[in-house]
Amino acid sequence: MKRRTFVHAAVAALAAGALPVAHAQSPGPANKVVIQVSDADPGKWNLALNNAKNVQTDLGASNVAIEIVAYGPGLSMLKADSVVGNRVREALDAGVKVVACENTMRNTKVVKDEMLGGIVYVQAGVVEIMQKQQQGWAYLRP
Amino acid sequence: MKRRTFVHAAVAALAAGALPVAHAQSPGPANKVVIQVSDADPGKWNLALNNAKNVQTDLGASNVAIEIVAYGPGLSMLKADSVVGNRVREALDAGVKVVACENTMRNTKVVKDEMLGGIVYVQAGVVEIMQKQQQGWAYLRP
Amino acid sequence: MKRRTFVHAAVAALAAGALPVAHAQSPGPANKVVIQVSDADPGKWNLALNNAKNVQTDLGASNVAIEIVAYGPGLSMLKADSVVGNRVREALDAGVKVVACENTMRNTKVVKDEMLGGIVYVQAGVVEIMQKQQQGWAYLRP
Repeated sequence: MKRRTFVHAAVAALAAGALPVAHAQSPGPANKVVIQVSDADPGKWNLALNNAKNVQTDLGASNVAIEIVAYGPGLSMLKADSVVGNRVREALDAGVKVVACENTMRNTKVVKDEMLGGIVYVQAGVVEIMQKQQQGWAYLRP
Repeated sequence: MKRRTFVHAAVAALAAGALPVAHAQSPGPANKVVIQVSDADPGKWNLALNNAKNVQTDLGASNVAIEIVAYGPGLSMLKADSVVGNRVREALDAGVKVVACENTMRNTKVVKDEMLGGIVYVQAGVVEIMQKQQQGWAYLRP
Repeated sequence: MKRRTFVHAAVAALAAGALPVAHAQSPGPANKVVIQVSDADPGKWNLALNNAKNVQTDLGASNVAIEIVAYGPGLSMLKADSVVGNRVREALDAGVKVVACENTMRNTKVVKDEMLGGIVYVQAGVVEIMQKQQQGWAYLRP
C-alpha cells in the first residue's frame, strides 16, 4: 500500500483502539507501587512497612507513590490497637497512603472508631489493588 | 521538520515498534484479574474465592473477567474432594474461570478424573499467570 | 474534522504523550517475569525454582527472561550454605538471573563472601521488583 495510505490506516487504527495502548496512567510520580497486606501476621505487616520505607529511601519519597491496602485477615494491621500502630503512623507521616477494606470491616463487624486515624477507606480492597495495577502501578505482596 | 514529515516519521516509528506500546489486550471486560492459588491452605482458598466474589459484587459480574489459577501446593483446591468444592462450583456458576496446572498434576500423579468438573487445564499454571499479566490483567495473590 | 486533520491531531497527541502509552520495554524476550522470594521458607524457595524451570521448559529458555529477587526473610535462599544452593546454581547455569538485596544484607549483617557465587546485587530488592513490573515484566510470588 502507498505510504500515505498506510499512515492514515495506522493512525485510524490507533485512534479506533485497534492497536494496543496501555491504560491511562494516573497523575503523580512515575514510580507507583501498591502493597497488599492480607495476612494476620505482624511479621508481614513489618515487612510491608519496611518495603515502603526502603522504596522511599532508595528513590526519594517525592519520586514514588506508595499505597498499602489491608484487607481480609490483614485488616488487623490497621486497627487502633495494632502492634504496628506507631509504624503505620510514621508511614502516614512519610506520605504513604494507607487503605482499609470496608467489605472486610463489615464482615468482621469492625467500625471506623476502632481503626487508626489518618487511613482511608475503600469499599473493596481487592478492587483497589486490581485497579491500581490497571492504572500502571506495580504490585507487591510481602 | 515539516509537519507532514513529522507525522510520517512518528507513525512509521510506531509501526516499527520504536515507540513503546503495551502488549495486545485480550478481548473482554476492561477489568481483568488473575488470582494465584499456590498454597496448600484452605484459608487461602477461601480468601481467593471471597476476593473473586467481592470483585464481582463491586464491579458487576459482567464488567470483570476473573481467572483463578491453582498450581503447586495449591492444586488440591481443585480436587474432587476439596473442602471448598462447593464454593468452586459456585464461582464457576458465577462466571469465574478456574484453571488447573497440568505440570503439577503430572508431578503429583493426579489425573483429571480426580478433579472437580467445569475447570479448565493449562500445561503450566505459572506461564498462564505470567501471560495474563502481559496481556494487561491485574494479578492477585491472596 | 477532515481526515488529514484528524490524522495530524492524533499523531501529535500521541507524540505529546496525551495518549497513554506503556512504559518503555527493556530489550530482550517478549516474555519476562520477576519472581519474588521474601519468605524464610525452603518450600517457597523450591517452588520459585520449580516455577522458573517450568517457564523455561514451556516457553523455551531463550524465549523468556527470568529474574529471581530475594530480599527480607527470603535472603537466606542465596547464602552459600543455602539448602537449595545446588538448585540456585542450576538455575544460574540455565540463564536465570538471581538477585540479592543489599539493604537486607546490611540490616542482617551478611556480606558478599557469605553468599552464593554468580548472583548479582541491587541496593533495594523491592525497588528492583517494582521497576521490573513498570518495564513490562510480569510478577510472580510463589
